[in-house]
Amino acid sequence: MLVGFVGLGAMGAPMALNLVKAGHGVQAFDVRAGAANDLVAAGGHAAPSAAEAARGADLLWLMVVSGDQAEAVLFDAGGAAALPAGAIVVAACTQAPAQARRTADRLAAMGLAMLDAPVSGGIKGAASGALTIMVSGDRGTQARAKPVLDVLGKRVFDVGAEAGLGSTAKMINQLLCGVHIAAAAEAMHVAECAGVSPQTMLDIIAVSAGHSWMFGDRAPRMMQADPPVASAVDIFVKDLGIVLEQGKVNRQGLPLAAAAMQMFLAASGLGHGKADDSQVIRAYRALNGLPRSKA
Amino acid sequence: MLVGFVGLGAMGAPMALNLVKAGHGVQAFDVRAGAANDLVAAGGHAAPSAAEAARGADLLWLMVVSGDQAEAVLFDAGGAAALPAGAIVVAACTQAPAQARRTADRLAAMGLAMLDAPVSGGIKGAASGALTIMVSGDRGTQARAKPVLDVLGKRVFDVGAEAGLGSTAKMINQLLCGVHIAAAAEAMHVAECAGVSPQTMLDIIAVSAGHSWMFGDRAPRMMQADPPVASAVDIFVKDLGIVLEQGKVNRQGLPLAAAAMQMFLAASGLGHGKADDSQVIRAYRALNGLPRSKA
Repeated sequence: MLVGFVGLGAMGAPMALNLVKAGHGVQAFDVRAGAANDLVAAGGHAAPSAAEAARGADLLWLMVVSGDQAEAVLFDAGGAAALPAGAIVVAACTQAPAQARRTADRLAAMGLAMLDAPVSGGIKGAASGALTIMVSGDRGTQARAKPVLDVLGKRVFDVGAEAGLGSTAKMINQLLCGVHIAAAAEAMHVAECAGVSPQTMLDIIAVSAGHSWMFGDRAPRMMQADPPVASAVDIFVKDLGIVLEQGKVNRQGLPLAAAAMQMFLAASGLGHGKADDSQVIRAYRALNGLPRSKA
Repeated sequence: MLVGFVGLGAMGAPMALNLVKAGHGVQAFDVRAGAANDLVAAGGHAAPSAAEAARGADLLWLMVVSGDQAEAVLFDAGGAAALPAGAIVVAACTQAPAQARRTADRLAAMGLAMLDAPVSGGIKGAASGALTIMVSGDRGTQARAKPVLDVLGKRVFDVGAEAGLGSTAKMINQLLCGVHIAAAAEAMHVAECAGVSPQTMLDIIAVSAGHSWMFGDRAPRMMQADPPVASAVDIFVKDLGIVLEQGKVNRQGLPLAAAAMQMFLAASGLGHGKADDSQVIRAYRALNGLPRSKA
């Protein structure tokens, strides 16, 4: 297939490269100059604009940061207008389900199909073609996109026939991730205040029912003064923001997501927005002080 | 060793049996008549009261439901007074750290040693001698109790030299468990409202960063109308109650534990206190309604 690709960031660049290696034609654009150098060396094409990346493509993959950026590429920068009738837009960004549905409707009115297909698996999954892709949209469109989806994703889930469902699945994963990181911080903060050895606490939870994937990954970094940034506090301000914005649209109370959001917001407000998201524990230390006398 | 054992419930009965099988002398008491029958058949002794279970014992194991029950056995029913000087009390109940410390102080004043040693691992771990035991207390006392601890626990963690630290570790695990169950309910509730297939959602989270041990265990049961009761909603009203009571003693804000507690309280108030704790999702359904229109 001829694939237009917009967004050659830490995840997008290796993904586009994998598409070239799999034999697809790729014309890619990124706002940063030189982002496509590796791709061109591998046989891909560097497009001078988002519209030129889209022109004539069978499928346009949007690997941008947000739904707003996706809309800008499609409707402000002329990406949608440059696509041939019947082409597929894959919105792989993390966005609110309501926004994914709105974009799908606008594209449908232009004769274009959209798959709502956010991904997870990070830079590692992107590089090895082992992403999890949560796809929703017309089943015929899903089938047509399969040759591309199968190159990038190890696990491609069909979440349903309507735009919005893929983004809902991703949003639910982010809800759990955000709550679990904040819960790990709350737990490790109680431990450090009480004088329980952090390493003993990590060892106990690793074999207990209180374990989570995020606890195992983030709690050790909570005990470091200034750990390397795997993913920043402000990423969860964004992702829990999507959860709560969608909850607002739907008029749903989500008490745990809301409580977790307050801690990420506070951590960011205290100046730690660019720190590793494990450092949400600093908001707990600000809130409760440290060390504490024991009762 | 000669072991006094109080509390032959679903966990206590197989634990006492394992001590007999390992060659320890066991004199056991439970308020329910006949609770010691299996133990007696295996060579143990049924004591007619808590005080008689304690009389002359090297170690008194308290496998009761709460710190209040432990205090009642020790100080109201004469358990502590019946122990010889220097004997060890093992408080294996789940209780607030502050209460564990208070009981240890009272026992010390009577010339008795205490280990604060809550357990996890459930009925299965109790039956197979594979419990996790979080022990704190004087290191010499821990060493003296080792022949008993090693029979009952597969993983015996030394959490520190002071009473209260073992209970803190257990409490932190319960904090994480309670928050993770409520988070799983919040997540599955968003999925069911949005029209995402519950099975697809379970499959996605199973391979995603949002996974937790509790999600894997409880979320499938959330999708059942009336699942068998593995552990009741009211158990988390108790356990998160301990977390928040200790937080109150320590003057610590614990936003996620507090939010999760509200959902367990609401579920219990709606009449589901004896239901499986996965049914905390019913509080979300009451709060937000179901099904919802999608936006």
